[in-house]
Amino acid sequence: MPFINIRITKEGATAEQKQKLIEGATQLLVDVLGKNPASTFVIIDEVETDNWGVGGQSVTKLRADAKK
Amino acid sequence: MPFINIRITKEGATAEQKQKLIEGATQLLVDVLGKNPASTFVIIDEVETDNWGVGGQSVTKLRADAKK
Amino acid sequence: MPFINIRITKEGATAEQKQKLIEGATQLLVDVLGKNPASTFVIIDEVETDNWGVGGQSVTKLRADAKK
Amino acid sequence: MPFINIRITKEGATAEQKQKLIEGATQLLVDVLGKNPASTFVIIDEVETDNWGVGGQSVTKLRADAKK
Amino acid sequence: MPFINIRITKEGATAEQKQKLIEGATQLLVDVLGKNPASTFVIIDEVETDNWGVGGQSVTKLRADAKK
Amino acid sequence: MPFINIRITKEGATAEQKQKLIEGATQLLVDVLGKNPASTFVIIDEVETDNWGVGGQSVTKLRADAKK
Repeated sequence: MPFINIRITKEGATAEQKQKLIEGATQLLVDVLGKNPASTFVIIDEVETDNWGVGGQSVTKLRADAKK
Repeated sequence: MPFINIRITKEGATAEQKQKLIEGATQLLVDVLGKNPASTFVIIDEVETDNWGVGGQSVTKLRADAKK
Repeated sequence: MPFINIRITKEGATAEQKQKLIEGATQLLVDVLGKNPASTFVIIDEVETDNWGVGGQSVTKLRADAKK
Repeated sequence: MPFINIRITKEGATAEQKQKLIEGATQLLVDVLGKNPASTFVIIDEVETDNWGVGGQSVTKLRADAKK
Repeated sequence: MPFINIRITKEGATAEQKQKLIEGATQLLVDVLGKNPASTFVIIDEVETDNWGVGGQSVTKLRADAKK
Repeated sequence: MPFINIRITKEGATAEQKQKLIEGATQLLVDVLGKNPASTFVIIDEVETDNWGVGGQSVTKLRADAKK
């Protein structure tokens, strides 16, 4: 009964990619700890880039600076 | 000062239902642990069905399969 | 498939009390949203009073001040 | 490599204010624990007022009552 | 800069297994979304079985019932 | 009523340092968003270095490698 929460910036992950994240994370817990996939939850949170900071900068600013 | 986080799939919970979840969760901590409701936080997160997986499948897919 | 996380200070909640929190939280989601208890997760986190702050004070300090 | 999650009600925090929260939280971990800002994550979650309860009431209701 | 939180019951996961979870989860985000492993955080929380409930029962009770 | 969760590796943060984190985080929300400190929660989670990974490595391993 693992619970896996994946938090990523909201930058266009597709439904297919999110399905792959769900499959991969679930399979990882089967492979490493023999967990039952039927009772494994995966939740993906997509966070606006204004709302995610690294090194004291929002990702919005980091992305903008990277384009300069 | 309990903090209760309720995560559900985003499938149409109404404001009234969410108020009932807030009331019920707060009252539960009063009844079981004698906690002060005035300093009890309840946060409800509603998660898109593409972003929630069980058994390696997104809830979007599970719901679709259930209708077949 | 709700996921409910209850965070409380680590101040002696018994196994019986935690079982009641699990039962009550699960039943709440059945009553309000008709959710399936078999796929409802409840996780209780107990946090040291040094590690929980309200009003800028740790709960350890608040409890000590309350005894003065 | 601290991870700081700030949860606030969704009531109009601007991009500038969120940048200040990111800067301030990152600097706090530098000042108090000497952490490396480059590997400090800050995530801000903005929660609808229907979805946040205090004292058994949603913030939506609390705000409405406060205006009466 | 993904953040992955894996919550499992505290039932003897070894340091090696936790290292595999960290590797696998990090690699998953590289494979699916091309994320930079250097800025990918994985945090594993191990939860006491008294503190984790499914179907309204603590895992402690579920495990005990399974042995009967 | 902000909720701030600070997650750090479990590497000896003192009660005084944690009190400073609580004060600083609370004051930050006062300064930036004018929030009421009396209803501001700060929770600090200290995570074992085996349980925290960056770049696919546990912090335990990263620390050991840094000493070589």
